Amino acid sequence: MPGDPRPIGVFDSGMGGLTVLRALAARLPNERFVYLGDTARLPYGTKSADTVKAYALQATRLLLDQGVKMLVIACNTASAVAVDLLQQAFAPVPVIGVIEPGARAGVAATANRRIAVIATEGTVRGGAYARAIRTLMSDAEVVQQPCQVFVALAEEGWADSPATRAAAEHYLATLFASPAAPDTLVLGCTHFPVLAGAIRAVIGGRVAVVDSAETTAGAVAEALSGAGLASNAGARDAGTVRFFATDSPERFARVGAIFLGRAIDPASVTLVDLHTFA
Amino acid sequence: MPGDPRPIGVFDSGMGGLTVLRALAARLPNERFVYLGDTARLPYGTKSADTVKAYALQATRLLLDQGVKMLVIACNTASAVAVDLLQQAFAPVPVIGVIEPGARAGVAATANRRIAVIATEGTVRGGAYARAIRTLMSDAEVVQQPCQVFVALAEEGWADSPATRAAAEHYLATLFASPAAPDTLVLGCTHFPVLAGAIRAVIGGRVAVVDSAETTAGAVAEALSGAGLASNAGARDAGTVRFFATDSPERFARVGAIFLGRAIDPASVTLVDLHTFA
Repeated sequence: MPGDPRPIGVFDSGMGGLTVLRALAARLPNERFVYLGDTARLPYGTKSADTVKAYALQATRLLLDQGVKMLVIACNTASAVAVDLLQQAFAPVPVIGVIEPGARAGVAATANRRIAVIATEGTVRGGAYARAIRTLMSDAEVVQQPCQVFVALAEEGWADSPATRAAAEHYLATLFASPAAPDTLVLGCTHFPVLAGAIRAVIGGRVAVVDSAETTAGAVAEALSGAGLASNAGARDAGTVRFFATDSPERFARVGAIFLGRAIDPASVTLVDLHTFA
Repeated sequence: MPGDPRPIGVFDSGMGGLTVLRALAARLPNERFVYLGDTARLPYGTKSADTVKAYALQATRLLLDQGVKMLVIACNTASAVAVDLLQQAFAPVPVIGVIEPGARAGVAATANRRIAVIATEGTVRGGAYARAIRTLMSDAEVVQQPCQVFVALAEEGWADSPATRAAAEHYLATLFASPAAPDTLVLGCTHFPVLAGAIRAVIGGRVAVVDSAETTAGAVAEALSGAGLASNAGARDAGTVRFFATDSPERFARVGAIFLGRAIDPASVTLVDLHTFA
């Protein structure tokens, strides 16, 4: 078996999806990646479903143009509204979102069957997490809380600042104060893992905090081998990432490093215009 | 003199510019307005100059299509990079930004000739406020501080929450602690006036806090009468506003009310696609 050397495409509204790319690269060391952040139009979390669908279609066309063999929607908002559409539009290319893996992680972690999901306004409004969790655990009690300010706090790199603590207090303290509180919190936005410390300080150590990065990497690994698309050990350029952004490569590199957990060379980021893929 | 009954066009990346519209409507009761918020692509404050220029051109074309007689760029980021371009591209239509009026307000308020400007990353990076202030007061000492998280806090309506206080503390406490601190703070983003209470709590009562809304309204009044474009008393539809947004009218109405200071009927907001004006 020669393996399939084509890269995996990863798409997000901006830099938050780099938390997913990080988990993918760790889990799949033989693969190479193309990451696209639609930074000129972020955030998606406050935008309507139709707008996000149109943007996701353009992003997918660019990634297919780059020869990707599989698409990972590393953005909760886009996963919530566009995964089905993209699967239909671009079959047989496998398209994997982060909602179903995130729901799976939450269901695996809960003992009292009460799960809280924090996400952007758009993800909460669409209700995709609640549906995905109830599909896996029909009697689960799901509480959804939009945490829009967390996006800006994460992009500012304020992982555990007083402002982040105060925002976490505002959004989460009441929800986790009762004895019947959820025992599991799903971070339903790829920006939020960098704020996990401040979130944990507010909700206490007994609540399981899960995100979709690890489980998405697992789902991608399964899909790759299931479809015979995996790359072989020792594949050329294994572990490399080509970055594309729709706005300032300098800012993408600077803020992206917060989410990727390592430095990004601005010269390695290519500026693209997605309107040409409309 | 019959007066010129055509509306004044007001453009912002989103809802923050409604603080300027509010001042315009109060100052110019005979005029009617068309307000466009490019909510599908906000915020502009983290985007590059070229991207913001392209967006501003599209927005202006839409407003001219609506028959406006004058254009007010009620967005600091777009004013900083696009006013000259729009003036040249659309002459003889008068184009007025918020930077020069904001600088004028700061210069009028300072006694010690030390002025602080808080704004988005994009506005600070471009340095337009510092240039505009030094044009008016060549020996002014200008300190610029990006306050990106303030945008999200204002849109969440957290006018004086603990998180807003903590963010204000982070951005501003050191700057205003010294005896040689600025005596004037210019709110260089149209979102920030709603956070003035929390900002004042951190910087103290002796600092003058000014924004560009009032002075922009004054500049527009002058330009109208100077160019013979003012509407007459008793003009038809005086005081009315037509709203356009590039994303969810519902969210525009809900969040916009925070900035406009009065309710907005979602049914009065028209959804538009600016790509058709590219």
